[in-house]
Amino acid sequence: MKVVIVGGVAGGASAAARIRRLDESAQIIVFERTGFISYANCGLPYYVGGVITEEEDLTLQTPELFWDRFRVDVRVRHEVTDIDTGQKTVTVRGLETGKVYEESYDKLILSPGAKPVQPNMPGIDSGRIFTLRTVEDTLKLHQFIEASQPKSATVIGGGFVGIEAAENLAGLGLKVALVEYADHLLAPLDFDMSCAVHTQLKGHGIRLMLNTAVTAFEKSGDSIVTKTAHGQDISSDMVLLAIGVTPDTVLAKNAGLELGAKGSIIVNERMETSAPDVYAVGDAVEVRHFVTGQKALVSLAGPANKQGRVAADNVCGKNSVFHGPQGSSVIKLFDMTAASTGINESAAKAAGIEYERIVLSPASHAGYYPGGKIMTMKVLYEKDSLRLLGAQIVGFEGVDKRIDVLATAIRAGMKATELTELDLAYAPPYSSAKDPVNMAGFMIENIVTDKVKQFHHDEVDTLPRDGSITLLDVRTPMEYKDGCVHGFVNIPLDDLRERLDEIAAHRPVYVMCQSGLRSYLACRILTQNGYNCYNFSGGYRFYDMVRQAKKQTETAYPCGMDKS
Amino acid sequence: MKVVIVGGVAGGASAAARIRRLDESAQIIVFERTGFISYANCGLPYYVGGVITEEEDLTLQTPELFWDRFRVDVRVRHEVTDIDTGQKTVTVRGLETGKVYEESYDKLILSPGAKPVQPNMPGIDSGRIFTLRTVEDTLKLHQFIEASQPKSATVIGGGFVGIEAAENLAGLGLKVALVEYADHLLAPLDFDMSCAVHTQLKGHGIRLMLNTAVTAFEKSGDSIVTKTAHGQDISSDMVLLAIGVTPDTVLAKNAGLELGAKGSIIVNERMETSAPDVYAVGDAVEVRHFVTGQKALVSLAGPANKQGRVAADNVCGKNSVFHGPQGSSVIKLFDMTAASTGINESAAKAAGIEYERIVLSPASHAGYYPGGKIMTMKVLYEKDSLRLLGAQIVGFEGVDKRIDVLATAIRAGMKATELTELDLAYAPPYSSAKDPVNMAGFMIENIVTDKVKQFHHDEVDTLPRDGSITLLDVRTPMEYKDGCVHGFVNIPLDDLRERLDEIAAHRPVYVMCQSGLRSYLACRILTQNGYNCYNFSGGYRFYDMVRQAKKQTETAYPCGMDKS
Repeated sequence: MKVVIVGGVAGGASAAARIRRLDESAQIIVFERTGFISYANCGLPYYVGGVITEEEDLTLQTPELFWDRFRVDVRVRHEVTDIDTGQKTVTVRGLETGKVYEESYDKLILSPGAKPVQPNMPGIDSGRIFTLRTVEDTLKLHQFIEASQPKSATVIGGGFVGIEAAENLAGLGLKVALVEYADHLLAPLDFDMSCAVHTQLKGHGIRLMLNTAVTAFEKSGDSIVTKTAHGQDISSDMVLLAIGVTPDTVLAKNAGLELGAKGSIIVNERMETSAPDVYAVGDAVEVRHFVTGQKALVSLAGPANKQGRVAADNVCGKNSVFHGPQGSSVIKLFDMTAASTGINESAAKAAGIEYERIVLSPASHAGYYPGGKIMTMKVLYEKDSLRLLGAQIVGFEGVDKRIDVLATAIRAGMKATELTELDLAYAPPYSSAKDPVNMAGFMIENIVTDKVKQFHHDEVDTLPRDGSITLLDVRTPMEYKDGCVHGFVNIPLDDLRERLDEIAAHRPVYVMCQSGLRSYLACRILTQNGYNCYNFSGGYRFYDMVRQAKKQTETAYPCGMDKS
Repeated sequence: MKVVIVGGVAGGASAAARIRRLDESAQIIVFERTGFISYANCGLPYYVGGVITEEEDLTLQTPELFWDRFRVDVRVRHEVTDIDTGQKTVTVRGLETGKVYEESYDKLILSPGAKPVQPNMPGIDSGRIFTLRTVEDTLKLHQFIEASQPKSATVIGGGFVGIEAAENLAGLGLKVALVEYADHLLAPLDFDMSCAVHTQLKGHGIRLMLNTAVTAFEKSGDSIVTKTAHGQDISSDMVLLAIGVTPDTVLAKNAGLELGAKGSIIVNERMETSAPDVYAVGDAVEVRHFVTGQKALVSLAGPANKQGRVAADNVCGKNSVFHGPQGSSVIKLFDMTAASTGINESAAKAAGIEYERIVLSPASHAGYYPGGKIMTMKVLYEKDSLRLLGAQIVGFEGVDKRIDVLATAIRAGMKATELTELDLAYAPPYSSAKDPVNMAGFMIENIVTDKVKQFHHDEVDTLPRDGSITLLDVRTPMEYKDGCVHGFVNIPLDDLRERLDEIAAHRPVYVMCQSGLRSYLACRILTQNGYNCYNFSGGYRFYDMVRQAKKQTETAYPCGMDKS
């Protein structure tokens, strides 16, 4: 059997190694357009920032080592320019030699990846504009920084790569502006959950420009000016474009393969394309999202590797399937961590799923053991089925742990209320006897069993202040004095039973505390005293986090002034 | 409704607060024998070590605060001495006043906990022998250390409390000997997995005495001598007894409640005892282990809290059930972490479960990002059903995360091979594109689909060295030279294909490498070349870890000499 693989990074390299493990006699050829195979894609921003110091750490695998160990014939700097699915051949061009030749295959695996979106706008071809997708991109940027010692950078795009690049450039001492078209960074997070991220980046000196459309670039001496739609230009010594990637599928298109969203390659669960004996994996393929069951593009290394393995199994006559990714992801933001799994509110709405959300602020470990940090956690579940839909967590310690626990629960199809039963490992340095994930389960159970009703931060400002409802803040007088929401009156929780007569009967009561726990206790007291009441999800802490972040960003742009 | 609760720590305090949340009108009385309620049991060793510096951090809740918030009438220093389940009354003695009185109940919840095992042996009543179960125990020990400035301590018992106490006493500068009756510390770990723990503690200056039965204590000036069965006595300035706990159920026994193993209280899933309207929770009750389905005693805070909640629900007319604990636990050992969930090999054997095991040594995060640490992970699954049975992990970073992911997978009833599909959050600082838990799944899948057969470290020394089988080490010559197993010949993996003629045909081949990955690749090559071969589980690294730890401990005692 002769297997040809187009693309030698995550999915392609995984497939090649797996095929060899399954079939010692197969001939395996990998064509890779860049000069490097199986490189550390997700490490590239950290090489720019000097966190990863050795180029060899990015390019641990070489064609020679791959041959020695796996007898895989890796041809770097070779581009596959055409596929004949009828004749079962590919046309290859050696980028060094210019030599063009054909290679036949019995099985073909396409792992072409995705390419950075490069908008067609004035000035885009400046030598001061970089992308960060390949090792070559990275070395080029690194060399520019070494040679030109830029003092400032504009990063365009607030996804994973843009933020990691911004952090790393800031770490090098550059003044960094981070520009994002949408109203918040990190699309996997909802706006409210991204607010802590905004505050964190600004706190580390990164200038944040949200709701900002870039329209052009202009050279200005040794600087480059990024022109924006709201008229506020940004001058800096370099620009990094990280506005996302798009499936790199010209080859597949020309070969007549069926394509889906954004030109992605359509595959079935076995990673088979529409052409016989042609498989495709990685960022270039359209997948079914595990949670929504809908078609999706997911550019993440984990799924790419898993798909490579599945394709390899099927190439070798096994029967493996890929059940779809759920988009679990995590990012370091200086000392902060933001992570998500499954779908967020926007995605749930887009998919037409009736969801409920909870927000909590648990500590990373037992309060009496030093070093614990508060995290903000949002969990979504489907209203009727109670199926877990997704989770988002932003915090410091222990965020990656809880997101992986929730990712596992989602994968296993657990009900949201079953989170109460998770038997997680507890010792004071690691968790609490009731882990944050258990707490999420308890909160959901209380909602599901009608022990409490909620209202959310995006409803607070629209609640009537005409006395038709009671707005109650049950924190201590000192907390209340430090900051409260207009119209909420203060009765501390521990005084509530004695002061019930101050709360008008027969009117709904909306109760707030700092995190949502004391207000829940207040709701239980009020409910049993005949009140119809609502608990404020996430508490004042979450409300204020969103409000502060909004204030910092929203006020900046409608008038075209940057006050950040 | 009048509810009486006996015991105001984890289970009892949880129940009291939950009952109030469910029933504003219930009368709730908690009797607690010690002077403290809802205290930080798991934090006590860290107070001794000065990691937790404030006594108030251990005793955050007070009877006054519990009254203010929950209207729970907490009576500390009150002991319930008798229960009349017919009359529905308890007899109470005020330990300060000596006053004895009766209290009636509609519902009774027993949360008496467990008490430290205090062996009846000569010298046990010395003032230099301490236990560490209550706040009072802890303050007493703390005061002794402050006043007497001991230079050395003997900790007896190598479970969680013993090890945490040893670490904390060592942290104070004491010379610590840790004495354990069994052949290894931390019963939730198998012997082989505990070896890294032994090495870690010895590396931090703790003298480790395994296989050591204590027979008596003797005063000797300002010291206390711990006499042992093998004749090697230990002289130190103090002794901490931490040889486990036993259900504290005299009260339940006298009340005629049905008792189970070690005098534990028998309850059903609703936490109901054999007496009407009497519930029991926490360390005192017998539970069904979630994995084995067998009766078990589990003294952990997580399950106790969950049981308290379940009992409270049922007391209030709901229908909640507790589905059994799976024993998830974690412990800090200086900079190391050891954790487990589900059952280990000993427990699987005891339960008559046919299991298979895998051992791997994954890095905590991507190798190219600085700071990653190797962990040792063992996963057990049931042979026929592929049901996940348990996992043990010892390492540094990321251990607690992976054990919680595996705990969740076990809870959800996932098959071991489904670990391959977990979509976990990856970024270089946190994990690898194939997370360690995914890797465990891939290894299991390879075994289950007959891609590889294994042999284990406890079989290595008994393999014949008579040429009837080939013992092959596929590491590099340098690794081989640094340390190898007697009888294994070295052919590096990358040379294997060229040197197949050196390996006798028709004889089984047992292959070893450092971690088990390269030897797996070698097995795939050999298998496809007609060899019958076996992969060494865990690699030389694991074998050597066990061998070194054994050498340090086993040689010490048969002759009564401590060389540790």
